[in-house]
Amino acid sequence: MSSAKQKGEKTMRFLHTADWHIGKTLNDFSLLEDQQAAFTQIERIAQQAQVDAIVVAGDLYDRSVPSEAAVTELNGMLRQLNLNDHFPVLAISGNHDSAVRLSTGTDWFARSSLYLNTTLAAAFTPVTIKDTQFFLLPFFGIQAVRNYFHDDHIKNVNDAMERIVAEMKKSFAAGKHQVLVAHFFAAGSQRTADSETLIEVGGLSAVSTAVLAPFDYVALGHLHNRKALNEERVKYSGSPLKFSVSEAHQEKGVWLVDTEPFAVQWVPLQPVHDITLLKGSFRELVTSAKDKPATDFYDIELTDRERIPDVLNKLRTVYPKIVSLHRTHQARQLALNRQKQRLAASPLDLLSDFYSQTTGSKLSSEQRRWAEEALIKTTKEEQ
Amino acid sequence: MSSAKQKGEKTMRFLHTADWHIGKTLNDFSLLEDQQAAFTQIERIAQQAQVDAIVVAGDLYDRSVPSEAAVTELNGMLRQLNLNDHFPVLAISGNHDSAVRLSTGTDWFARSSLYLNTTLAAAFTPVTIKDTQFFLLPFFGIQAVRNYFHDDHIKNVNDAMERIVAEMKKSFAAGKHQVLVAHFFAAGSQRTADSETLIEVGGLSAVSTAVLAPFDYVALGHLHNRKALNEERVKYSGSPLKFSVSEAHQEKGVWLVDTEPFAVQWVPLQPVHDITLLKGSFRELVTSAKDKPATDFYDIELTDRERIPDVLNKLRTVYPKIVSLHRTHQARQLALNRQKQRLAASPLDLLSDFYSQTTGSKLSSEQRRWAEEALIKTTKEEQ
Repeated sequence: MSSAKQKGEKTMRFLHTADWHIGKTLNDFSLLEDQQAAFTQIERIAQQAQVDAIVVAGDLYDRSVPSEAAVTELNGMLRQLNLNDHFPVLAISGNHDSAVRLSTGTDWFARSSLYLNTTLAAAFTPVTIKDTQFFLLPFFGIQAVRNYFHDDHIKNVNDAMERIVAEMKKSFAAGKHQVLVAHFFAAGSQRTADSETLIEVGGLSAVSTAVLAPFDYVALGHLHNRKALNEERVKYSGSPLKFSVSEAHQEKGVWLVDTEPFAVQWVPLQPVHDITLLKGSFRELVTSAKDKPATDFYDIELTDRERIPDVLNKLRTVYPKIVSLHRTHQARQLALNRQKQRLAASPLDLLSDFYSQTTGSKLSSEQRRWAEEALIKTTKEEQ
Repeated sequence: MSSAKQKGEKTMRFLHTADWHIGKTLNDFSLLEDQQAAFTQIERIAQQAQVDAIVVAGDLYDRSVPSEAAVTELNGMLRQLNLNDHFPVLAISGNHDSAVRLSTGTDWFARSSLYLNTTLAAAFTPVTIKDTQFFLLPFFGIQAVRNYFHDDHIKNVNDAMERIVAEMKKSFAAGKHQVLVAHFFAAGSQRTADSETLIEVGGLSAVSTAVLAPFDYVALGHLHNRKALNEERVKYSGSPLKFSVSEAHQEKGVWLVDTEPFAVQWVPLQPVHDITLLKGSFRELVTSAKDKPATDFYDIELTDRERIPDVLNKLRTVYPKIVSLHRTHQARQLALNRQKQRLAASPLDLLSDFYSQTTGSKLSSEQRRWAEEALIKTTKEEQ
């Protein structure tokens, strides 16, 4: 499928994006211009591909109480897509959004096919567009699911999703495709084509992709890396731009999804200001600055051993938007970095890290599989 | 005109309310239940009088960032009036609202005749319903008006309103009535029927009602007392409930306005929990408590001269919702009260107070008139 490819008469083609985080800042640098530029590209992709709907899978805002600038920005984007371009929009609240605040206007929005769902109760009534039923499931807490089903036996998010999916299935219409739009941490056990290693083993509060099998496609939000899952029909779109140094190497973009015949296509987005990791001595960094865009964001690793007075401000004269500066040779800094990495790691990574540090060798693929199974059991028994 | 009276075919009948302040608390007591009850009465009045529109003249919320409970409440009220009851609603942002936050959804709202204007620019395009053009002017800062007209000669809010009204007049349609919905401090120089004293002399940043003469009716919000003005066609509706002890003696309600022939009718609202001022000794107050609704709000003036240990908590056992407690015989308290009254007083009251304290006699009506003229001059010369 390409953007130019003719679409079938009956098939539904939609664009899948998520995690806009409007209002987010990167070390106090506003990203509104970057977010606006990404939005404009998304709009153009939708127009060129003649999509029948645009899916935004949660975290529209970065904060439950967004700034006035962020409110203006998101209001303008939704207005543009829905009222000006006449795209149906299918959106949900994410964990960063205040479901209540985001719900303002929803009853009016639906009259022009802007479906913004913020409540669990409304997730079970699908929105049907052409050949497809969309189930819009906002980010939820487990207690809300227990309350909804009057069932205290729901122990974790995986149990919760099993109940939710079973309930949704009651509304599945024969002859229609079913798409779930949701915002949570999902974990599969798929292998990549070229490797024996598992891509993802699931944190303690992950939804197993197996639960999501009844859907023709699951449009997820939450993780900012579209490669977080390697499933054919359960996908994260990732965020439309890099929101942290840890995302520096990720390609950002959107999915175009056709329902009949099923096809997905990745369309990358071009950042206005990239995030680049630089490593070198002060002298090298200053010298190479002329080849680097001054308006980009930089994460800098300084390799000098000696102390350079006021180094951050000196570097800022050539790299105005430094989002982090650290030193290769600084014991305390190194320790902090290691701790930071550990905090961001998954349970399996931690276990694997511990194993290699204590034994000097890596986990075998069989050992990794055992560890994974044990972790999944733990998840199932979690409160 | 009565609620039961038949309405003309062509005439517009609308309900005028303002200053809902959803989310406001009274000394940490939630007023949501009271606000909901007032709303239900307003809805019923609108239904019984078969109004063609409901005007809400600003301060829908109490704060620029309302609580989630307040958001739920206001969203529900607007949904009920507009989507369920199918009333056109004409509303503006007040000084307590964040114009930007309140603007969320407005472009969708207008499609079902919920006209919520939050920008100066949109105030010059009237909304026409039946025989009437409604100009929706949100609360504005003077600088915004200077910017809009590219005119730095606008010195005060009265100048600003002269320019705004002149601009609005360009859109007046022949054969239509014109109603202004606005949120500011207006001051007239009308006399009451039974007294020589002026009702209001105008603070330093008041709009003279003379500027508003081109309109058939001006539906104001800002002041919570509907008697703040005594004009036939320029009216504050006041707030739908008492929001402070200083409003304890005010009757709350809404105006019903007919355009052809012009008529206004005051319809009072019944509070669920009234605010009552009580004065007496501890013993008297405790004894009389059995005759007073325990769920009302009380402002208590204690006349005892001796110290009563833990008196507030003792009184709370019989009056659970005490919003203020003060003592007749407490020098410091008296001084504070006097200072408080002074802060709340108008310039003329202050002058009159000063005169009587220094000369021992009251201002004559002629002296008051001189003082008033001088104050109005000061207003006109104000930056």
